[in-house]
Amino acid sequence: MIAKTPKPPYYAVIFSNLRTEKNEGYLEMAERMEELATKQAGYLGHESVRDGLGITISYWESLDAIQAWKMNAEHLAAQSLGREKWYKAFKTRIALVERDYGFEL
Amino acid sequence: MIAKTPKPPYYAVIFSNLRTEKNEGYLEMAERMEELATKQAGYLGHESVRDGLGITISYWESLDAIQAWKMNAEHLAAQSLGREKWYKAFKTRIALVERDYGFEL
Repeated sequence: MIAKTPKPPYYAVIFSNLRTEKNEGYLEMAERMEELATKQAGYLGHESVRDGLGITISYWESLDAIQAWKMNAEHLAAQSLGREKWYKAFKTRIALVERDYGFEL
Repeated sequence: MIAKTPKPPYYAVIFSNLRTEKNEGYLEMAERMEELATKQAGYLGHESVRDGLGITISYWESLDAIQAWKMNAEHLAAQSLGREKWYKAFKTRIALVERDYGFEL
């Protein structure tokens, strides 16, 4: 559940979002995008939670990998539907992870 | 719900965590830490969601502000209890937000 990322530096794409009431096609698309993202070059992992507010963070080797995923044709179509139908607000933040620490029991 | 952050660059502290079954004192402490964090110098906002996996992201002006918050005496006590009782795993990532975009209806 907590992504197993390599030692920093690497990149995070933080996607914070609020959904509309429109559910048509959403879950299928979310699953498809997850499947597709994990196959992209430079993909390192992701974490996703929703409870009203949704936060999905994906981790990437480089800005180039993030850019390639953003411009993936199927993903572009999904982004377009997201803006039109599924999200009433979102913020995407591209961030360089400089340091991390933690523990696991 | 989505934090209103200024134009990048600024910092994000991504705290991804899994809770234990122990709830004693947790909610009160979480609320107190939220209240305290928002009063820290350099605090810019935060977003928090839990659905099994918990993700809390706080946004800060600088690494110095993050360090000061990390070393806050009350926060240190909370971190210690968190490691002992409340979290069975966590990962904290310190990241420089370089770019952001989004929309709000």
